[in-house]
Amino acid sequence: MLLRLSTLFVRTLREDPADAEVASHRLLLRAGYIRRAAPGIYSWLPLGLRVLAKVEAIVREEMERTGAQEVHFPALLPREPFEATNRWTEYGPNLFRLTDRRDAEYLLAPTHEEMFTLLVKDLYSSYKDLPVTLFQIQTKYRDEARPRAGLIRGREFIMKDAYSFDVDDAGLDVAYQTQRDAYERIFQRLGLEYVIVAATSGAMGGSRSEEFLTPTPIGEDTFVRSPGGYSANVEAVVTLPPPAIDWTDAPVSHVESTPSTTTIASLVALANAEHPRADGVAWTAADTLKNVVLALVFPDGSREVVVVGLPGDREVDLRRLGAAVAPAEAEPANDADFAKAPHLVKGYIGPGVIGRANTGSETATRYFLDPRIVDGTRWITGANEVGKHVFDLVAGRDFVGDEAIEAAEVRPGDPAPDGSGPLELARGIEIGHIFQLGRKYAEALGLKVLDVNGKRVTVTMGSYGIGVTRALAALAEANHDEKGLAWPVHVAPAHVHVVATGKDAAVFEAAESIAQTLSTRGIEVLYDDRPRVSPGVKFADAELLGVPLVVVVGRGLAEGVIEVRPRIGGTSEQVPVDQAADRVAELVELL
Amino acid sequence: MLLRLSTLFVRTLREDPADAEVASHRLLLRAGYIRRAAPGIYSWLPLGLRVLAKVEAIVREEMERTGAQEVHFPALLPREPFEATNRWTEYGPNLFRLTDRRDAEYLLAPTHEEMFTLLVKDLYSSYKDLPVTLFQIQTKYRDEARPRAGLIRGREFIMKDAYSFDVDDAGLDVAYQTQRDAYERIFQRLGLEYVIVAATSGAMGGSRSEEFLTPTPIGEDTFVRSPGGYSANVEAVVTLPPPAIDWTDAPVSHVESTPSTTTIASLVALANAEHPRADGVAWTAADTLKNVVLALVFPDGSREVVVVGLPGDREVDLRRLGAAVAPAEAEPANDADFAKAPHLVKGYIGPGVIGRANTGSETATRYFLDPRIVDGTRWITGANEVGKHVFDLVAGRDFVGDEAIEAAEVRPGDPAPDGSGPLELARGIEIGHIFQLGRKYAEALGLKVLDVNGKRVTVTMGSYGIGVTRALAALAEANHDEKGLAWPVHVAPAHVHVVATGKDAAVFEAAESIAQTLSTRGIEVLYDDRPRVSPGVKFADAELLGVPLVVVVGRGLAEGVIEVRPRIGGTSEQVPVDQAADRVAELVELL
Repeated sequence: MLLRLSTLFVRTLREDPADAEVASHRLLLRAGYIRRAAPGIYSWLPLGLRVLAKVEAIVREEMERTGAQEVHFPALLPREPFEATNRWTEYGPNLFRLTDRRDAEYLLAPTHEEMFTLLVKDLYSSYKDLPVTLFQIQTKYRDEARPRAGLIRGREFIMKDAYSFDVDDAGLDVAYQTQRDAYERIFQRLGLEYVIVAATSGAMGGSRSEEFLTPTPIGEDTFVRSPGGYSANVEAVVTLPPPAIDWTDAPVSHVESTPSTTTIASLVALANAEHPRADGVAWTAADTLKNVVLALVFPDGSREVVVVGLPGDREVDLRRLGAAVAPAEAEPANDADFAKAPHLVKGYIGPGVIGRANTGSETATRYFLDPRIVDGTRWITGANEVGKHVFDLVAGRDFVGDEAIEAAEVRPGDPAPDGSGPLELARGIEIGHIFQLGRKYAEALGLKVLDVNGKRVTVTMGSYGIGVTRALAALAEANHDEKGLAWPVHVAPAHVHVVATGKDAAVFEAAESIAQTLSTRGIEVLYDDRPRVSPGVKFADAELLGVPLVVVVGRGLAEGVIEVRPRIGGTSEQVPVDQAADRVAELVELL
Repeated sequence: MLLRLSTLFVRTLREDPADAEVASHRLLLRAGYIRRAAPGIYSWLPLGLRVLAKVEAIVREEMERTGAQEVHFPALLPREPFEATNRWTEYGPNLFRLTDRRDAEYLLAPTHEEMFTLLVKDLYSSYKDLPVTLFQIQTKYRDEARPRAGLIRGREFIMKDAYSFDVDDAGLDVAYQTQRDAYERIFQRLGLEYVIVAATSGAMGGSRSEEFLTPTPIGEDTFVRSPGGYSANVEAVVTLPPPAIDWTDAPVSHVESTPSTTTIASLVALANAEHPRADGVAWTAADTLKNVVLALVFPDGSREVVVVGLPGDREVDLRRLGAAVAPAEAEPANDADFAKAPHLVKGYIGPGVIGRANTGSETATRYFLDPRIVDGTRWITGANEVGKHVFDLVAGRDFVGDEAIEAAEVRPGDPAPDGSGPLELARGIEIGHIFQLGRKYAEALGLKVLDVNGKRVTVTMGSYGIGVTRALAALAEANHDEKGLAWPVHVAPAHVHVVATGKDAAVFEAAESIAQTLSTRGIEVLYDDRPRVSPGVKFADAELLGVPLVVVVGRGLAEGVIEVRPRIGGTSEQVPVDQAADRVAELVELL
C-alpha cells in the first residue's frame, strides 16, 4: 500500500482547534484524521478511517477467536422492545427518540440487549442450542448531556457489543471469563495499558460487572487501587464501616445555642470554644453530621427531595450517589426543591424532622445515611432551628436512616473494603465494560429454553462492550508528544512515512523507488511526494501524523545515504541508499 | 475458514414468511440470512453478514482502483446544511427528523451531498487540490412510504456513495466516466446483469444522470429499450411529438349534446353513432382529449389542483408525472380537491375553463399538455357542461397548455426519441445511480477554489451511489430456484458445503477431515456436522443456503467415494475419498 501525500485527502492544521480540550481530540483534528460534524458527532477522513479499520480488525479477530459469531443490528429500532424492559423510560434524555411518517415511535439504539435477546428467542429453543455468544461492531447513539473530548464522549460512536446466552449461572461464569480474557488480549494487542476494576451495573442491570479503564489524567472516570490488589471504579467502592459502639454510657443529647454556624468550619470553631469535649480533644469536622439536601431526578423528569447524612469532613460525590440511585440521577437541590420542603432549616438540618423512620411518617423526606454513621457513634448536628445544634446525638439510639447509601466521596488513604490496604485514586478512560446481566432481559422478553429435563428455564446473559472509537482516542491520548501523534505500528495508518525533501529530481526518484519497493514487500507506505513544500513543513507533518518510522530522502543522497528514524524514541541512522529498503523492512519488523 | 452448522447461529424456516412477497426476501429470511426488526429495517445474521462483507469488499476494491478515497460520515446530521440546499424541506416525509435534548434539529441522512461538499470546502482551496473523488460505505435512512420486498426498498440500508469534485465540466465528464466504468466492473464482478438507462435527476438536482438497473420482473422500476440502443427509465423517456399540422382548412369547433358520456368509451361510441367523421373513418379514443384532474403534493404538505390533457387512449403515469414535477409528488385529486375547483365538470372538462393561458387568469388551474397535442391537431373534448362535448377543437388555434409535460404512460411500440426504433418495456431493480450534479450543491454551500488564473470559481460535482444491501437482494433474486438460494462463488457465504449424512462415526470423521483439509487450503467451508439430523433435512438446508458446491459424505464412503455436486446446474460426480480435497479444490477454481 502506497499513499501519496500529494493526492491524499488530508490537510493538517498548524493551530490548535479552539474547542479541543484534550490532546487526542486536538491532534486527531490537527492531523486531519477526523472532523467535527456536530457536537459529539465526527466524520472520519482517510487516515482516521485506516486506523479505525485496524482497531476494528483486532477486536473482530479476538472476538472470533472466542467463538463469538458476528451479526449486525439496525441502529433505528422500534420502541416496543425497549418498553418491555423499561429502558425506553429509564434512559431518559440520553435516548434519541423519533417518530416515523406513521407516528410510530423509534429510537437510535444506545446498546442492543433487547434485540439480541429477541433474536436468540426467535432462533433457539433448547439447552442444546446453548451456549452462544454473538457480537457486532456497530454505530451507537447516546444523547449525552455533555459530549466532550472528541471521540472520548461522543453522541454517535462505534461500539463492539457482545452478548452471551447460557442455560445456567456456571455457563455464564465461563462465558464472562472468556470475554474477559479476550478483552485483555485486545487491549494488549492494541498496546493500550488497562486496569480492570469492579463496577456498578447502572441502567444495564445485572449482578457482577467490571470495567476496563486505561489510566490517564484526562479520563472522566475515577478508580481506586489498593496495594493488596483491590480495584474498583469510584462508584463501586464499598465503604468499610467502623465497628458499632456500645452507647450504654453515652450522655443524653443536648441542644445548644450555636448562632451563625451555617458552615461546618464555623460550627466546629464555636463548639471548641463554647462546648469543648470532656476529654480535651478538639472537635473536628469529622465529629459533625452533615445533612445534605439533594434532588433525585427520575427518567420521567420527576424530582424527589432527599437528605444524605454523612460525616462533616466528607463531600457528597454526585456520581457515586447517582450510581446508587440509578436509573435516577442526583443533583443539588434548587430553590424550588427547598420551597417544597419548608421543614428543612438551611444550615441547621438535623435528623429530627427527616427520614420516614425518624418521623414515623410515610411521606417524610427520605433520609440516606453514610455507612460510617454506625450505631453508637455520637454527633454534633442541626437542631432544625436557626442558630441551634444538638450535641451527643447517638446513631441507633436517637436517630436512624431510612437506607444506607454510598454517596460520600472516596479519598486517598481510605481503607479498601477487602482489607487490602489504603486506596489510591487515579483517573482513566472506560474502554470496555463487561456485565453479568443474569436473567433481567431474558425474563422481560420471555427468552426461555427447554433444559435437559424438558423444563422451560429462563436463559442467563452477559453483555460485553468495547468503545471502538473511544479506544482509538485513548490510543492517541497514550501515544503522542508535543509535536503530534505517535501510533503503535499495529494501528498506525501506515508503517513508514517516506519524506522527499528539496527540489532535486534525483531525490524524488530515489524516494519514489524506496516507497514502491517497500510497498511491494507488503509494507504500508505514506509517501510525502509533495513538490514545492518545504522540508520543515514536511517534517512537522510527519511528526503530526505519527507514522512510526520516518525515512528521509534528501541532502544525504549526494553521499549515497538516506536517514531512517523512529517517530518517537530511538535514534536516527544513516543507511546507504541501496540498502534502504532492506533496512527499513527490518526496522518495521522490530517495531 | 470452517463454519460448523452444529454451532452456527442460523435456523432455516420450512415455511414461507407471510409478508415476504418476492423470492429474495422470502429466501433470505427462510435461509436465516436476515431477520426483520421493523418495517423496512433488518438485522443481519452471520451468513448474511458474510455475503454483505463480500459485496462491500468488491465495491470498495473497485472504488479504490479509480483512485477514490474512503471516508466515513455520521448518519445523524444537523439540519443546517440540508437547510442551505433546501433538501430539509424537499425531502418531505421521506426524511427521518428528530430533535436532541437541547431541541436542536437533526436528521438521519438519506444521502450526503451536503456533508461531502462542506468537507471539501473545509480542506481544499485551489484548483491544484482537484480533482478528488471521495466515497463511503455507510448506513442510510429513508422513511419510505411503502417499504417493500425486504432489502429492495428498506428504510435503513447500506449505500456506497461517492462524490467527485472538479474545477470544470471537462473534469466532471472524466470523473463521471471513471465512475461509470467502475460501476460496470463492480456489477460484472458481482455477477449481476445490468442495463444503463438515462434517468431523471429527481430531488438530487443536476444535469445528466444514469441508472444501473438489473432486469427482473419483480423490479419496481420500468425502463425502455429500443433496437437501436436507446435506453432510459420510464420517467426519463421523452415523447417524440408528431409534426404540427396546418389548421387553415380546419372546421370551426362545434359543441354537441353528448348525454351520459362520462367515459371515453361511451363518448367514442356516441360520436361514431351520432357525429361520424366526414371521411368515414371511425372515431377512436385517440381522437379525444382527456383532461385528468390531479393534485400536486409539495414537500411542505400543500396541494395544488392541476389538469393534465392527453390523448384519450393513454393513461397518466403518476411516476412520470411525479418525476416531471419533483420535488412535488402527484396523486389523483380527492373529493376535497374537487370541492375547491367547482368549475371542473367531472366527465366533461375541456380547455375552456382551465389553464392560465386559455383563461387569461393568473390564478386559474394550471393546464399541462402532453407533447402529442401539437398545434393543428383536432380533438373531441369536454365542453365544461354536463352532457356536452366540443368537436374539432384545434390545438394552438382554440386552446393551448400552460406547459408541456411528460405525464402520459409509455407503451411498448412507442418510438424511441432518438429515432432508434420502437420501445420495449421491462422491469428492473435500481442498483446504481450516477449523477452529474454540476454546481448546485457547491453554489448553495459556497464551495469555491482558486482557478489557474487566481479567480474564485465554483466547483462542479458528481454523485455516484450503489445500493449495497439492495444489490445483495438483487443477487439473491437473480440466483435462486424453487428450492433456495444459489450464490455466485465470489459473494457466497462459503465456497463448499460439506454434508455428513447418517450416523456412522467414519462418515463424520471423513467429512471432518475433508472440511479441515479444504479449510487449510484457503477454501471457505460450511460443514453440516449436525448429529441426529436426517439427510433429507440436511440436503434441503444445503439447497436453501445456496453455497455453490455441495460435498456429500455418506453411504458411498463404504465404497470409498464421496459425491460432489454444484448447487445448481452441472452434474454430480463420485470422487474417491482420498482425492476428494484435490478434486473439490479444482472445482472451486472452476466456479
